[in-house]
Amino acid sequence: MTQLSSIQSFGDLRRVLLEMPGPDVESGEAARLREPTLTKPPGSLGRLEELSLWLSEWQGHHPPRMSTPRALVFAGNHGITDQGVSAYPAEVTAQMVGNFEAGGAAVNQLCRTFGVELSVEPMSLDRPVADFSESPAMSEDECLDAILFGMGAVTENTDVLCLGEMGIGNTTSAAALCHATFGGESADWTGPGTGVVGDALEHKTRVVADAVHHHKDSIGDGLDALRHFGGRELAAIAGATLAARFRRVPVLLDGYVSGAAAAVLEAVQAGTLDHCQVAHVSAEPGHRRLLEAIGKVPVLDLNMRLGEASGAVLAVALLRAAAHCHAGMATFADAGVADKEDAD
Amino acid sequence: MTQLSSIQSFGDLRRVLLEMPGPDVESGEAARLREPTLTKPPGSLGRLEELSLWLSEWQGHHPPRMSTPRALVFAGNHGITDQGVSAYPAEVTAQMVGNFEAGGAAVNQLCRTFGVELSVEPMSLDRPVADFSESPAMSEDECLDAILFGMGAVTENTDVLCLGEMGIGNTTSAAALCHATFGGESADWTGPGTGVVGDALEHKTRVVADAVHHHKDSIGDGLDALRHFGGRELAAIAGATLAARFRRVPVLLDGYVSGAAAAVLEAVQAGTLDHCQVAHVSAEPGHRRLLEAIGKVPVLDLNMRLGEASGAVLAVALLRAAAHCHAGMATFADAGVADKEDAD
Repeated sequence: MTQLSSIQSFGDLRRVLLEMPGPDVESGEAARLREPTLTKPPGSLGRLEELSLWLSEWQGHHPPRMSTPRALVFAGNHGITDQGVSAYPAEVTAQMVGNFEAGGAAVNQLCRTFGVELSVEPMSLDRPVADFSESPAMSEDECLDAILFGMGAVTENTDVLCLGEMGIGNTTSAAALCHATFGGESADWTGPGTGVVGDALEHKTRVVADAVHHHKDSIGDGLDALRHFGGRELAAIAGATLAARFRRVPVLLDGYVSGAAAAVLEAVQAGTLDHCQVAHVSAEPGHRRLLEAIGKVPVLDLNMRLGEASGAVLAVALLRAAAHCHAGMATFADAGVADKEDAD
Repeated sequence: MTQLSSIQSFGDLRRVLLEMPGPDVESGEAARLREPTLTKPPGSLGRLEELSLWLSEWQGHHPPRMSTPRALVFAGNHGITDQGVSAYPAEVTAQMVGNFEAGGAAVNQLCRTFGVELSVEPMSLDRPVADFSESPAMSEDECLDAILFGMGAVTENTDVLCLGEMGIGNTTSAAALCHATFGGESADWTGPGTGVVGDALEHKTRVVADAVHHHKDSIGDGLDALRHFGGRELAAIAGATLAARFRRVPVLLDGYVSGAAAAVLEAVQAGTLDHCQVAHVSAEPGHRRLLEAIGKVPVLDLNMRLGEASGAVLAVALLRAAAHCHAGMATFADAGVADKEDAD
């Protein structure tokens, strides 16, 4: 982790993005050799076969392990809520953190169901990032602190890491981040979030358009966009995504906000998200467009739009299924089943 | 179960299809009342919310239970394999049944992963149904026996029933069944199955077209099609689907072959599959068309094409997630979280 511990500026971060470790070739090769020996027609487990290979490659372990999945939910508050962009008051962020800690939220039920260890990280909720309609949400130092905090939250002994967020106002943040980073129109990226429709959605779309226009001359790349529009929780997700790569921890990205946070890294350096799967495509319309922009196919499509890592934790079930099939199935030879070549 | 135990002919069966129990209105109402009180924006769990409501309605129980999911895999052999329509020899059906019993197949790993109890039902494997390119696969009595066998395999104390199959040659059977029941061209319904491509796929397509043409004057409805083209495992799936409805057991249908078997009931009487979810859409191209024909949206889309209830068992994870979120989440009032109406 030499490279990560030396990061003291956006410049350092940009250099690290050029030096990321790749997949483990040996573990990948072991997975590729085992798969066609298993008692099923070649390719018939579809995406599950891809997932077990991907787990092997990015864990650097064959067969892949799925005994210690973890979820990290970062929470942040947003000055942009002063512009009336959300259906819920900003206090809900802290209230929901309390709900996570008490075990009452959706993600708690999902983590219990699938044996995922959940950590919730509230990030200075009483001190929202600045209203980005006026000034950058964060200074470079503030943004770097949040990124480093996210990096530090990634622990070893994690078979897969689910990354999620909570933050009233953060779909507005994600929309501005995507609009600034991937172009298009504000309306392409701005959606209802927790339930903003009609005139209120038009207003939200205008707030995003104006803010991106306002800051456009100060934004050189995705990291600049992250500090201008992102909340601390988005910066932490970007940091955790990066740290996971160095710690050989495959990542499940959750919905639109988490995806936008990670996508800024991909925009800076293509391939940065190769160790990530997009767990699901959100009902928030910008998410599908974002996934096209970064070339990712979601594992699930269930019309969810809750955030809080809910979709990512759900996808743990599929990764576990993939890993168990790959590791546990009998081979044609073991089971005495005729392989395709034996067909008459 | 009066209606079911009295079935002695296709005529009786057709009458039963007119008298099926509906969803439990009271349990459904209880689910509808609870859902908006839970600490999340309304609708934000998307398909999971629909699934918990559906479970409540068809179990006749609120909150829905997911402690006893079961999987039934019916296996059958097909005379049509004499026409060279499969990539694997017919002996593989019995060999795979052995593999299921020894715990080595994909479905075994999936059942272990998700705590699903698996029963495998080989149906006279040494006596394949007739080659339907020449004569009907089954007489009405043979078909009825297989349907009744499937009915009898459905046990009470089942929170959800996964239905699947194993049978070399049975994608050819499913293709003929769908072509005869839902029209179109043979090529719309005939796909690679376990791996038939090129000239062999063209041959398979022609075998299906010729057989459906050959029998067309003897086929009045979906049940007639089932006995002409279906194997015993398909008839058993149709029977189990029907019995589950009367026993208040919601059903997860697996891929193309299982879906075709159940779809004949829907073709005879619309609404017969309201207690069923389609767990996944198969990579077998006819399946997507079939789902359009019966108006079903699959839960998963993972490019799988294995059968043996694998996709259905995978979807148990999502049903369990849905049930646990619905039952276990805190309400806005309990958690002290501001609801949308409290927004300023």
